[in-house]
Amino acid sequence: MGSPMRRVSQEDTWSGQVHPDIASERHVQSFDVERLTNILDRGAQNTARRRKVESIIHSDPEFSCKDNYFMTHNERYEAAVKKAFHTQMLTQSLGWSEEELVYVYRALSGDTVLGVHTGFLKALRSLGSEEQIAKWEPLCKTCRIIATYAQTELGHGTYLQGLETEATYDATTQEFVIHSPTITATKWWPGNLGRSATHALVLAQLTCSGARRGMHAFIVPIRSLQDHTPLPGITVGDIGPKMNFDELDNGFPRLDHVRVPRENMLNRFAQVLSDGTYIKRGTEQSNYLFMVVTRVEILLGEILPPLQKACVIAMRYSVIRRQSRLRPSDPEAKILDYQTQQHKLFPQLAMSYAFHFLAISILEFFQRSYNAILDRDFSLLPELHALSSGTKAMMADFCIQGAETCRRACGGHGYSKLSGLPSLVTRVSAASSYEGENTVLYLQVARFLVKSYLQAHMSPGSTSQRFLPSSVAYLTAPDLSRCPAQRAADFLCPELYTTAWAHVATRLIKDSVYHLQTRTQSGQDQHEAWNQTTVTHLQAAKAHCYYTSVKSFSEALQKLENEPAIQQVLKRLCHLHALHGILVNSGDFLHDGFLSGVQVDMARTAYLDLLLLIRTRTQMF
Amino acid sequence: MGSPMRRVSQEDTWSGQVHPDIASERHVQSFDVERLTNILDRGAQNTARRRKVESIIHSDPEFSCKDNYFMTHNERYEAAVKKAFHTQMLTQSLGWSEEELVYVYRALSGDTVLGVHTGFLKALRSLGSEEQIAKWEPLCKTCRIIATYAQTELGHGTYLQGLETEATYDATTQEFVIHSPTITATKWWPGNLGRSATHALVLAQLTCSGARRGMHAFIVPIRSLQDHTPLPGITVGDIGPKMNFDELDNGFPRLDHVRVPRENMLNRFAQVLSDGTYIKRGTEQSNYLFMVVTRVEILLGEILPPLQKACVIAMRYSVIRRQSRLRPSDPEAKILDYQTQQHKLFPQLAMSYAFHFLAISILEFFQRSYNAILDRDFSLLPELHALSSGTKAMMADFCIQGAETCRRACGGHGYSKLSGLPSLVTRVSAASSYEGENTVLYLQVARFLVKSYLQAHMSPGSTSQRFLPSSVAYLTAPDLSRCPAQRAADFLCPELYTTAWAHVATRLIKDSVYHLQTRTQSGQDQHEAWNQTTVTHLQAAKAHCYYTSVKSFSEALQKLENEPAIQQVLKRLCHLHALHGILVNSGDFLHDGFLSGVQVDMARTAYLDLLLLIRTRTQMF
Repeated sequence: MGSPMRRVSQEDTWSGQVHPDIASERHVQSFDVERLTNILDRGAQNTARRRKVESIIHSDPEFSCKDNYFMTHNERYEAAVKKAFHTQMLTQSLGWSEEELVYVYRALSGDTVLGVHTGFLKALRSLGSEEQIAKWEPLCKTCRIIATYAQTELGHGTYLQGLETEATYDATTQEFVIHSPTITATKWWPGNLGRSATHALVLAQLTCSGARRGMHAFIVPIRSLQDHTPLPGITVGDIGPKMNFDELDNGFPRLDHVRVPRENMLNRFAQVLSDGTYIKRGTEQSNYLFMVVTRVEILLGEILPPLQKACVIAMRYSVIRRQSRLRPSDPEAKILDYQTQQHKLFPQLAMSYAFHFLAISILEFFQRSYNAILDRDFSLLPELHALSSGTKAMMADFCIQGAETCRRACGGHGYSKLSGLPSLVTRVSAASSYEGENTVLYLQVARFLVKSYLQAHMSPGSTSQRFLPSSVAYLTAPDLSRCPAQRAADFLCPELYTTAWAHVATRLIKDSVYHLQTRTQSGQDQHEAWNQTTVTHLQAAKAHCYYTSVKSFSEALQKLENEPAIQQVLKRLCHLHALHGILVNSGDFLHDGFLSGVQVDMARTAYLDLLLLIRTRTQMF
Repeated sequence: MGSPMRRVSQEDTWSGQVHPDIASERHVQSFDVERLTNILDRGAQNTARRRKVESIIHSDPEFSCKDNYFMTHNERYEAAVKKAFHTQMLTQSLGWSEEELVYVYRALSGDTVLGVHTGFLKALRSLGSEEQIAKWEPLCKTCRIIATYAQTELGHGTYLQGLETEATYDATTQEFVIHSPTITATKWWPGNLGRSATHALVLAQLTCSGARRGMHAFIVPIRSLQDHTPLPGITVGDIGPKMNFDELDNGFPRLDHVRVPRENMLNRFAQVLSDGTYIKRGTEQSNYLFMVVTRVEILLGEILPPLQKACVIAMRYSVIRRQSRLRPSDPEAKILDYQTQQHKLFPQLAMSYAFHFLAISILEFFQRSYNAILDRDFSLLPELHALSSGTKAMMADFCIQGAETCRRACGGHGYSKLSGLPSLVTRVSAASSYEGENTVLYLQVARFLVKSYLQAHMSPGSTSQRFLPSSVAYLTAPDLSRCPAQRAADFLCPELYTTAWAHVATRLIKDSVYHLQTRTQSGQDQHEAWNQTTVTHLQAAKAHCYYTSVKSFSEALQKLENEPAIQQVLKRLCHLHALHGILVNSGDFLHDGFLSGVQVDMARTAYLDLLLLIRTRTQMF
C-alpha cells in the first residue's frame, strides 16, 4: 500500500559552501568574533582545547549522527551505547581530562548514554568517603561497572521524605536490606537502568537500631557482571517511550529484600557502625548536596545549549528565508528584517547571553563553596541552594519557551525534524521537571526570600541584617519610589534597569510576606496560609530570579572594559534583556506607580530602537 | 550490548475500575453532567449520535491505537492507511453522514490519513463549478482517486503572490502546462502526497493570453492509477520526519512541464475559455475562500481537542497524585489541592470552554455567510477572514501553551509518551504555522482593526460608521476611563470585565493607529512605518481577540438561563478566563489608569478565590 518508503540520497548535499545571504551578513563585522568566542569559553586556551576535541568528534565516523532522525528507538539506543564506549576508548587513548570530557559531551549533544554514569561518579564524590571513592571510582571510570543514580519513585518525586524505598540494617549479617514495599516505591526514570546499568546508587529511608534515620544512598548491584541478567530480588526494565531521549534507557528497578554489605552506604555525612550505631556528620541538607551539584552543572551542560543552538538555527534561517515585501517595489525581504521576527528572536539571543553569564557566576560561587561544604561547613549551602534552584527553574522555563519561540519563528520548516529545532525543544522540555520540578524550586526560593526579607526588616542594623546573603542584599538597599527616566534613551542604562528590577522584586517579596502575615495574624493555620499565598510567592520568586539575571549580565559587562567593541554589542543585548522583561511584566512596574504609562512607552521605544540597532549594526553569527 | 529490549506485558492492566480518588471527586456533583454534555454537543441528539459512532470506533480492533507509541514511522503510516480504508468501508456499509464523519475523525484523534483527502473535497466544493464537483467528488468519495491540496512551496508559504509554480495555458492543445521553475518552487508539505496520493490540487500562477492572472487551482494527476508510479514529469517523495504526524506522509512534488486539460482548472470564480480568454467572476479574495473554510473547521476539529484532552488527563492525574503535605500532620495531599496547581490547570480548563463557545459562534457566522460567498456576495468576507484568522492564531497560541502547561503540571510523568501528553503537545504545536502563520494572521487582523478604527472615528455618525462590522462595533461604544470596581466581588461580573477588555483593546488599537500615523505624517514611507509598528499592532490584535473570546463566552452563558446550575459553574470559568487574562496583561489595564494597582489586587483576590471555589464546589470530570 503506497509507494515504498525510501530515502532520496542527494549524494553530498553538504557542499561546505556558505549561502551568499549568510556570507554578506558576516561581512558586517562590528567586533572581533574570535575575541568574543574566547570570552565565552573563559580563555583562548579553552577555545583551542574545545576546538581540538570538537575536531576529533566531528571527523570521527563513529560519532556520526547523520541518520539519527531516521532510526527507531532501539537503533538510537544501540548507536548511543556504541558512541559511549567509543568515547571511553578515546578517553583512555587520548588521555582526555574531565574538563575535556565536558567538551566531548557538548560536541555529542548528549547523544550518548554516558551522562548518568558520570552522574553516579559525581554523587559518589559528593556523598562517599575517600575510601569509597577510591574503591568505586576506578571501576566506574574504566566501565567495569555501569552505574546510575536512582532517587525518584513511581509515586514520589518532589517530596523526598515521601520516598518509600527502605534500607533496614541487619546487624547480624552487617548488611542493609533494600526493599520496595509497594508498586509506587518502584524507582522510576534512572538513566541507563532500562538495559545497561550493572549498579545503582539507590536513595532509601534508612532504619537502624529500630530508628528511622532519613534518606541515605546505597550502592546496589542490579545485573550480573557475568551474563548481565538481573540479580535475585530485582525486577528491572525500561519505562518506555518519552518525548525525547530515545537514546537513553530510563528504567525502573523493583527491589525485593535485596541485601548489600554495610560498606555500600555512602558515608561522608553519616555512617552506620557494625552494631547498628548511627553516626551523623552533616546537617539534614548534606544528603541533598549532590542535587545542588547537579543543578549547577546542568545549567551550562544541558539547559542553555538547546536555546543557544535554536537561536543560531533560527537566526541563520531568517536571513536566507525571504518572504513577502517590505515595499511593493522591493524584492522579497529577509524575514529577519521584519520587526516581528526581530521581536521573536533577539530577546532569545539576549537571554542566551544573560544566562551564560549568570550560569558562570553561579558556577564560580559553587566552586568557592563546594570544598567548604565537603569539609562540613554548611553556612553557604542555603544561599547556594536558593541560587541554583531559582536559576535552574528560570533557565528551564525560559530556555524551553525560547527554543520553542525560535522553532515557531521558522514557520513550517521549524516543524520538520530535519531543522533540528523540534528535537531541541522536546529535549529541553524535560528540564522543567528533572532535577527539581520548577514550581517547587521557585517556592523554595520564595521561602528563602521570605526568610531573608524578615531578617532584613525585623531588626534594622542588627548583626543578622549585616549578614544577609549577597544575592538578596538589595532587600536593604535604599529604594526609589519613582523611576527617574525622562526619555527613551534613559532606559539604556544598567544602573537604571537593575534598580528598577530590584524595586519590583522587593515590592513583590514584601507583598507576599504581607499576604502571608495577614493570614496568619488573622488566625489562619500557617501551612494553609502558605498554600493560599503561593501564587503570590511564585511571582515574587520569578521577579527575584530575573533581577539576578539582569544584575549578573551587567556585572559581566563591567569586566569587559578592555574590550570596548565587544562590550558595546553585549551591552545592547543586556539592555534588551532587561527591557524585554520590563515590557512583558509591565504591570508589576506600573502597579505602585514606579513606572508611569508614559515611561513604559519610553521603555518600549527604547526596546524597539534596540531591535533595529542590533539588526543593522551587529554581526550575529 | 545491553539486555534485549522487550515489552513487559502486564496482562490486562486496564481493569475498568475507577480509582477511588477519582470516584470520590465525581461524587461531588453540583450540576447535571449529562446536560452539560448535551449543551457542548449542541443537542442531546448529537450526543447520542456521537456516542454511537464512538462505540463503533472504540470497540473495533482495526482502530486500536494500543501500540502507536511503539511503532516505527513506517508502521504508523501503514496502520493509518489501513484505518483510513477501514473507515471508508464502514462509511459505505453504515452510511455515515458528513456530520457523523466529523465524530469519526474526532474519535480517531486524527490517527488516519484521510484528513487531507477530505480537505481536497472541501477545496473542490469551494472553488469548483457544479460540473467539476459532479465529476470529481464521487471519484474522491469512493477512493478511486486519493487527492491532496498542494499550495505551500519549499521557499514560499505566507506570501501567496510569491508562489512560483506556473500554469501556462496552451491554446493549441487546450492544456495548462504546470511547472516548478526552481527548487524553491517545489510544493512542500501536502499531506498524503509522500506515498499515497494519485492527484493533487496544485495552486499555481496562471498565465493565459500572455498575461499573468494570479493564483488558481489545478487538478494534477500525480501517480498512475494502474501501478501507482509517478507520472512523467513528476518527481515526488516524502519530506521526512516531523515533530509529530508520523502517520501522515507529507510530501513534495516537483513538476516538470506537466500538461493537464483545460477542464482541470477549478472555475467557480474564474475561467479560461478555449481561446485563452480569461473570465473573472470573483474578487481577488475568492481564491482564498478555501483557506477561510479550513481555518474555521480546524478550530473545533484540530486545535481545541488537544487542549481539552490535556486538561482531562492533567486534572485526573492531579487528584490521584499525592505529593508532600499541606500540614505536617496530614497525609500527602492531592496535588490539585495546591494553589499553584489550580493556577496552572484551571485557566486552561476555563480557556477550553471559552474557545469552545467562541469557535461555535464563528462556525455559525461562517455558516450564515458561506452560501452568500459561493453566490459571489463577498461583503461579509473581510470580517469572516479577520474573525477566523484572529481566532485561529489565538486558539493555536493558547492551546499549544495550555497543553504544554498541562503536560508540565504532571511532572516527570507528563514527559512519558504513555501519559498521552507529549503527543498532544507536539501535534497541536503544528497549529502555529499551518493554515496561516500566527503572526501573519494577527497582522491581518491588525490591518482590519486599523481600517475599522479609522472608519469608526474619521466621520462620526456617517453611514460607514453605522456599518461597522459587528465584531468591532465596540470601537464606537461609549468608553469608561476608569473601572468602577470597588471590591474584589465587583470583578465577578461579565459586563464589567467585558467592558474592561473592550477598553484595553480600543486603547491599544488607537495607540497602534497613532504610532502608524505619526510615522507617516512625519514623512516615513507607509510600508516602512507599518513594519516599524508591527509589534504594537500585534499587541492590539491579541487584545482584540481576547476580548472576542470573553464576549462570546459571556453571550453563550446568557443563553443558558434555563439551566441555572450549569450556568453557575460555567460562569465561574468565564470569570476565571477574563480575570486570568487581565492579570497576565495587567500592564495594559494599568497603563492609562483604567485599573489602579489596588484594583489589580482586587482582581487577583477574586481570581484566587475562584480557584478555591472551582476546586471545592465543582465536579470537573
